[in-house]
Amino acid sequence: MSLIVQKFGGTSVANVDRINAVADRVKKFKKDGHHIIVVVSAMSGETNKLIGLAEDMMGAPEPRELDAIVATGEQVTAGLTALALINIGIPAKSYSGHQIKILTDKAHTKARILKIDEKAIRQDLDAGNVVVIAGFQGVDELGNVTTLGRGGSDTTAVAIAAAMKADECQIYTDVDGIYTTDPRIVKDARRLKSITFEEMLEMASLGSKVLQTRSVEFAGKYKVKLRVLSSFDAYGEGTIITFEEDEKMENPIISGIAFNRDEAEVSVRGFPDIPGSAYQILGPIADANIDVDMIIQNVGVSGANDFTFTVHERDLQKSIEIINDKVKAKINAREVIGDSKIAKLSLVGVGMRSHAGIASKMFKVLSDEKINIITISTSEIKISVILEEKFLDDAVRALHKAFELEKA
Amino acid sequence: MSLIVQKFGGTSVANVDRINAVADRVKKFKKDGHHIIVVVSAMSGETNKLIGLAEDMMGAPEPRELDAIVATGEQVTAGLTALALINIGIPAKSYSGHQIKILTDKAHTKARILKIDEKAIRQDLDAGNVVVIAGFQGVDELGNVTTLGRGGSDTTAVAIAAAMKADECQIYTDVDGIYTTDPRIVKDARRLKSITFEEMLEMASLGSKVLQTRSVEFAGKYKVKLRVLSSFDAYGEGTIITFEEDEKMENPIISGIAFNRDEAEVSVRGFPDIPGSAYQILGPIADANIDVDMIIQNVGVSGANDFTFTVHERDLQKSIEIINDKVKAKINAREVIGDSKIAKLSLVGVGMRSHAGIASKMFKVLSDEKINIITISTSEIKISVILEEKFLDDAVRALHKAFELEKA
Repeated sequence: MSLIVQKFGGTSVANVDRINAVADRVKKFKKDGHHIIVVVSAMSGETNKLIGLAEDMMGAPEPRELDAIVATGEQVTAGLTALALINIGIPAKSYSGHQIKILTDKAHTKARILKIDEKAIRQDLDAGNVVVIAGFQGVDELGNVTTLGRGGSDTTAVAIAAAMKADECQIYTDVDGIYTTDPRIVKDARRLKSITFEEMLEMASLGSKVLQTRSVEFAGKYKVKLRVLSSFDAYGEGTIITFEEDEKMENPIISGIAFNRDEAEVSVRGFPDIPGSAYQILGPIADANIDVDMIIQNVGVSGANDFTFTVHERDLQKSIEIINDKVKAKINAREVIGDSKIAKLSLVGVGMRSHAGIASKMFKVLSDEKINIITISTSEIKISVILEEKFLDDAVRALHKAFELEKA
Repeated sequence: MSLIVQKFGGTSVANVDRINAVADRVKKFKKDGHHIIVVVSAMSGETNKLIGLAEDMMGAPEPRELDAIVATGEQVTAGLTALALINIGIPAKSYSGHQIKILTDKAHTKARILKIDEKAIRQDLDAGNVVVIAGFQGVDELGNVTTLGRGGSDTTAVAIAAAMKADECQIYTDVDGIYTTDPRIVKDARRLKSITFEEMLEMASLGSKVLQTRSVEFAGKYKVKLRVLSSFDAYGEGTIITFEEDEKMENPIISGIAFNRDEAEVSVRGFPDIPGSAYQILGPIADANIDVDMIIQNVGVSGANDFTFTVHERDLQKSIEIINDKVKAKINAREVIGDSKIAKLSLVGVGMRSHAGIASKMFKVLSDEKINIITISTSEIKISVILEEKFLDDAVRALHKAFELEKA
């Protein structure tokens, strides 16, 4: 008997019929003798509807209240999913974040999970129940409702799998696994049977959007075995995310091409090269709870520093304001420039470590396509470039072809 | 400085504009220097939408899950109301039933409040906040979400007013006070400036629908000063519900005519007159958490007993099943009959105590109208009759006129 955590996203629980399909799937696993914990998102559209209501009420809604409002979406789905299970003879109980309880820090709208009280879950599983948990939410130590930010139900699922030492954490989505790149852009993009955590982390954080970055980090940290599956495909194996490179069946140089259109770039230009300036720039950004992705620093020809970082485009205005108000004068910078019409593209693959020349091949392909590279950043298993957004699709297609990713 | 609890029902918070109007009203009281606690219902239509979803999922939804789903409606409104207040410069915080916390018994869908932890509320009020509380809900001692049943937000408001020793509990509705009867049926029905608790209790339980019975009981028990007001009328005084008869300005014989179309009658007929049979009949009904309203017992001509009680029509089927399964054979009854096409009409007035002849006048008026009375039941301050539902409107009009209730 295994303990399996199954997470279903918004499109998988979009209406009564789909929730019934989820219940049927859970029943199958339950009948096979497994203990099952289900984590659900809000019905698709609900979270946006609730955010819309809050924004109609107050332009930039106060975060504590916004969280209290938005968290109800998952609570409704959890209750409905429990009802669907009870209705087909499977004992089930739903829980909200405050009932489990999922303790988080106080960072409303992007809280981090600190602790999960697994006692109630354990008792219910032992009593034969399927436990259905509202994703995306928790409470801080004062009992204020918090949410984990977009896609946070994945994080809930992984955190619960870690706390309960589950045998597998299955993430059901509207895609049947992780692809070499987005099939909407490259027709012969190929599903990967497995991918390493490190690669997945790069793929997710770079915008493959199948899994939320934090959930993958969490899974890696607590050695939770993750599997991405389609909730619309009864027999698919999905993509398994492995801990070890040698568990990986395929071992290509490049696993996939990730990209992100939602990124925006902030450049702080022409400041003297004094130790601590990076901290002086990014400290106030972090204090405002803005997530920073790429960070690049160059010393320009004049000897003055240029510092560039990327944020989600919704945080661009606020980031520029913070830098102008709190940083610019202090570090004596010449100008602060923001650009949201950019996109990030990354080649990802553990095989890169032992293969030289990937970067130069990538740059040549882009050059042949006459696509200008704005910024470059690399790590051991990825090469990321910032491009003008309008060139993104062409760049993805050209690279997918050049690296022959359509072939297994 | 007074402490005022203000409760706003579903139509008063139906959309963004109305919630903003609620916030403006609260601001006015706050600026007058009062401490304000706001209790809100779900936006009108929301509770029914959520119940509909649950029923689509499972014909008769499991009550624990139903409560968890339905309670989200008020949580959303509470958050939105807090945002509306913050947006106009009034510091505010919302609370769900589990945060306050409002401890109830375990009777899902019709729970009773046992205790309210007023500490958090007191701290917030002292810090200058308006406290906005999601009505209609609580948690049991295990942290399961419970709801108080339809109209339960009134009960929440009164319970909080009692726990906090508030100076006044204002119930805002879509009517501007308590009327001598329903103005939709009798055009010249008149708003009462005051009414006693006892009268109000009879009016509410008999279906005037302005306030939930339990909230009036609670208010009477804890001496909470209640006022019913319209949320659409900025200057109305509404109707105040007084503790003492001598506080009452008017003292007519009859205060009003209440009625209830939702009642159904269960008759258990022809059983031997043995002590304990009333308990044997009503015990299993109470165990099933079905509320019983009228109870009438007659010894028939044959010496066999007839026992009649009324329940909400939604509980009729279940009541008949319970009596047939658990009671009929045990007490050796001849037959069990149910009827939902009935209505109850009551004359209510504390003045009745000292005025003989009210009942006979009432029966004469109905007789003149050729309306047959099925059942009669009386108390010190009311006379109730069960009629065929189709005669109800005529009966109300004839009695309103005969007792001259349109005159102050």
